[in-house]
Amino acid sequence: MKSEVSKIACDAAANVSQDRLWQCLMDLAAVGGLPDGGVCRHALSPEDIEARAMLIGWAESRGYEVSVDEAANLWVRRRGTHRDAEPVIAGSHMDSQPAGGKFDGAYGVLAAFEALQAMDAAGIETRRPVDMVAWTNEEGGRFDRGCTGSSVWSGDMPLEDYLNDVGVDGVRFGDALRATLEATPDLPRRPRSFAAHAYVEPHIEQGPVLEANGVPIAAVTSIQGVRWMNIEFFGAAGHAGTTPHAVRRDAFQAAHRAVASLNSLMDDPNDVIRFTVGRIVVEPNSPNTIPERVLFSIDFRHPDKALLNEKCRVIQASVAEAAGPCSFNITPTTHMDPTLFPQDLVDRIEASAAALGHGCLRLASGAFHDALYAAKNCPSAMIFIPCRGGLSHHPDEWAEPAHCAIGAAVLTATLVDLAND
Amino acid sequence: MKSEVSKIACDAAANVSQDRLWQCLMDLAAVGGLPDGGVCRHALSPEDIEARAMLIGWAESRGYEVSVDEAANLWVRRRGTHRDAEPVIAGSHMDSQPAGGKFDGAYGVLAAFEALQAMDAAGIETRRPVDMVAWTNEEGGRFDRGCTGSSVWSGDMPLEDYLNDVGVDGVRFGDALRATLEATPDLPRRPRSFAAHAYVEPHIEQGPVLEANGVPIAAVTSIQGVRWMNIEFFGAAGHAGTTPHAVRRDAFQAAHRAVASLNSLMDDPNDVIRFTVGRIVVEPNSPNTIPERVLFSIDFRHPDKALLNEKCRVIQASVAEAAGPCSFNITPTTHMDPTLFPQDLVDRIEASAAALGHGCLRLASGAFHDALYAAKNCPSAMIFIPCRGGLSHHPDEWAEPAHCAIGAAVLTATLVDLAND
Repeated sequence: MKSEVSKIACDAAANVSQDRLWQCLMDLAAVGGLPDGGVCRHALSPEDIEARAMLIGWAESRGYEVSVDEAANLWVRRRGTHRDAEPVIAGSHMDSQPAGGKFDGAYGVLAAFEALQAMDAAGIETRRPVDMVAWTNEEGGRFDRGCTGSSVWSGDMPLEDYLNDVGVDGVRFGDALRATLEATPDLPRRPRSFAAHAYVEPHIEQGPVLEANGVPIAAVTSIQGVRWMNIEFFGAAGHAGTTPHAVRRDAFQAAHRAVASLNSLMDDPNDVIRFTVGRIVVEPNSPNTIPERVLFSIDFRHPDKALLNEKCRVIQASVAEAAGPCSFNITPTTHMDPTLFPQDLVDRIEASAAALGHGCLRLASGAFHDALYAAKNCPSAMIFIPCRGGLSHHPDEWAEPAHCAIGAAVLTATLVDLAND
Repeated sequence: MKSEVSKIACDAAANVSQDRLWQCLMDLAAVGGLPDGGVCRHALSPEDIEARAMLIGWAESRGYEVSVDEAANLWVRRRGTHRDAEPVIAGSHMDSQPAGGKFDGAYGVLAAFEALQAMDAAGIETRRPVDMVAWTNEEGGRFDRGCTGSSVWSGDMPLEDYLNDVGVDGVRFGDALRATLEATPDLPRRPRSFAAHAYVEPHIEQGPVLEANGVPIAAVTSIQGVRWMNIEFFGAAGHAGTTPHAVRRDAFQAAHRAVASLNSLMDDPNDVIRFTVGRIVVEPNSPNTIPERVLFSIDFRHPDKALLNEKCRVIQASVAEAAGPCSFNITPTTHMDPTLFPQDLVDRIEASAAALGHGCLRLASGAFHDALYAAKNCPSAMIFIPCRGGLSHHPDEWAEPAHCAIGAAVLTATLVDLAND
């Protein structure tokens, strides 16, 4: 059964202003803007505080209720007719990578802000409040455990666990948090966590699929699961000129055999498995010495938990066989199961896109997002828009103004109907 | 036709003293000795100067003529009956790796010194003078172009080309050279280069073959040729979670394919080809980023120049095919053709071993040695003795006293007959 999209939802979506949204994106990108067109806006930094002040000013001038919680997540509420109904939430984050772009995170926050304004412009009321949120420290560029704000709000992590984290600049998270909260002493406080009806996060895809398919919207079905591990081989150093191959214990050649075997294991004609060897450490790393120790990292992702587990069970045996005369060690470093977004919420996003006349793919998210944590608290999903060349975390990151507006329109329609549930 | 070994050559060899040689080895190893049993005796360092003084003292006490040349090569002469006949030379070097052992280089110098003493003990005269030499800066551990002394003596390199080299400690080669020469102001000067009848260099094998075969001597037929190159792939960085494999330009996977292809190319059932990937550099070297640049080194060695050239011609095509969507670059860094030692000199070493009742293999040297340069001036060859586990350039480097003595005996017999040519 197809989800129904209401006429007032479509009316509100039609009031999305591409120019207004783009101007906000460019104004926000100037805060922490770099000469090369990129953005460096570390979480809880002076630039982050300036960006928050800019957004608060916009929100207050439009009559929205602005508030903040203990984790410095910034909330902007468009009231509903039922003041105490659980809100519908949309947003993302405003912190960036150290050499990041204008759209990662910022687009989700400002698309949500545009949705509130489009509802105003359409003159509609919703039963539930609609909240825009800017989560604290998603990127982890300054404090290396990212998704801080969303993980606290979801109840997945206590805020206290983060307070003593030390940033790349030597500043304690708790101190930067306090300074940020003190910059807006008059803002009302929201509870650390509260019940919500749904969360929808718009984001650039950070991959090339939408662009390659010429489709402006993806309804994101899941965030794929991740297994990270380090695979290490221990051999014996030796003279490259004098040591016959028969007696070598060459840690690099063991690693080479292991990569060959893992490449086969991870081969996927459907190109859904993501398998990356991104880091290699060789010792002593000298041209004429047989390597005695080689470590390489595996980044393995897939939307299906059973497949992740099944492949991981085979890795040990593949590595053991590849080791030959070397010893080896496998150290898991990250283990995240896939997050499946609720089917009905994904359907509603797809239906909104269809009702507005836009093509829509269903995609799994390759990257982590705040939605991963929000989903632990309330039904959550994401909307992707294309980005040029799939590029992200880079000064050249780019999304077309028209795609930004289409994403905001699909978000608006989805939020209006959710807010009238 | 087998080479003849004279009775007086065998008599002189029988006068080699294992204990005397071993004592000299241990006394020299104490100069620059490290707590872990290793030796750090950088070329032209205070330790090198102390080692020279020790050897000069021993030589003068035994009545030999000690001299030095402009490159600080140290010469110890046992006179011949024909004062002006071209000498027969034996020796090696006294400088060590920074964390080197007791035998690499030192053994060759002291085996040659023992040979002079064995001739004395046997009461024999030779027609030609017999010179022991200790070459300057073979290892390149302080001044990174090694074989300095032998390359100057051979005429292959002008001394002036080395003078402005700067050591790892910031000292100019020319200054360290002057300080070393000034430490022995009274030594007579030998010419920078002169004609010689032959050069024989004893050395530990620095490989496992003699030990594995239970044979105490190798007559070294050649120093294999070397081709070093850096192979570099340039792809595109990308998010490990979001980038489908179909659109990746993964520099690591290109390097992986290239190594697979080169491993096949270099596969040798006779285990004579030496092929090593010892150094790998990955950028940005982050677990969740597709590598955008990977460089790996090739160390490829073989005694046959034609084979070296033939395989190298194929490398370019193999790398181009492996590159796939990446671009690549191949940069040769070292190109040394094989040095073939004269057959008759190798025969004489083998005949000496046989006459003294010792097993002898014919081996190509996997490593460089001063003999490589000496061979550019006069007929040259080498004698290898086993070292434990093939280990060298390491504090645990070890040669058995009996093997040291056998090597000195084979050297003595060979030198006596050469000196009577």
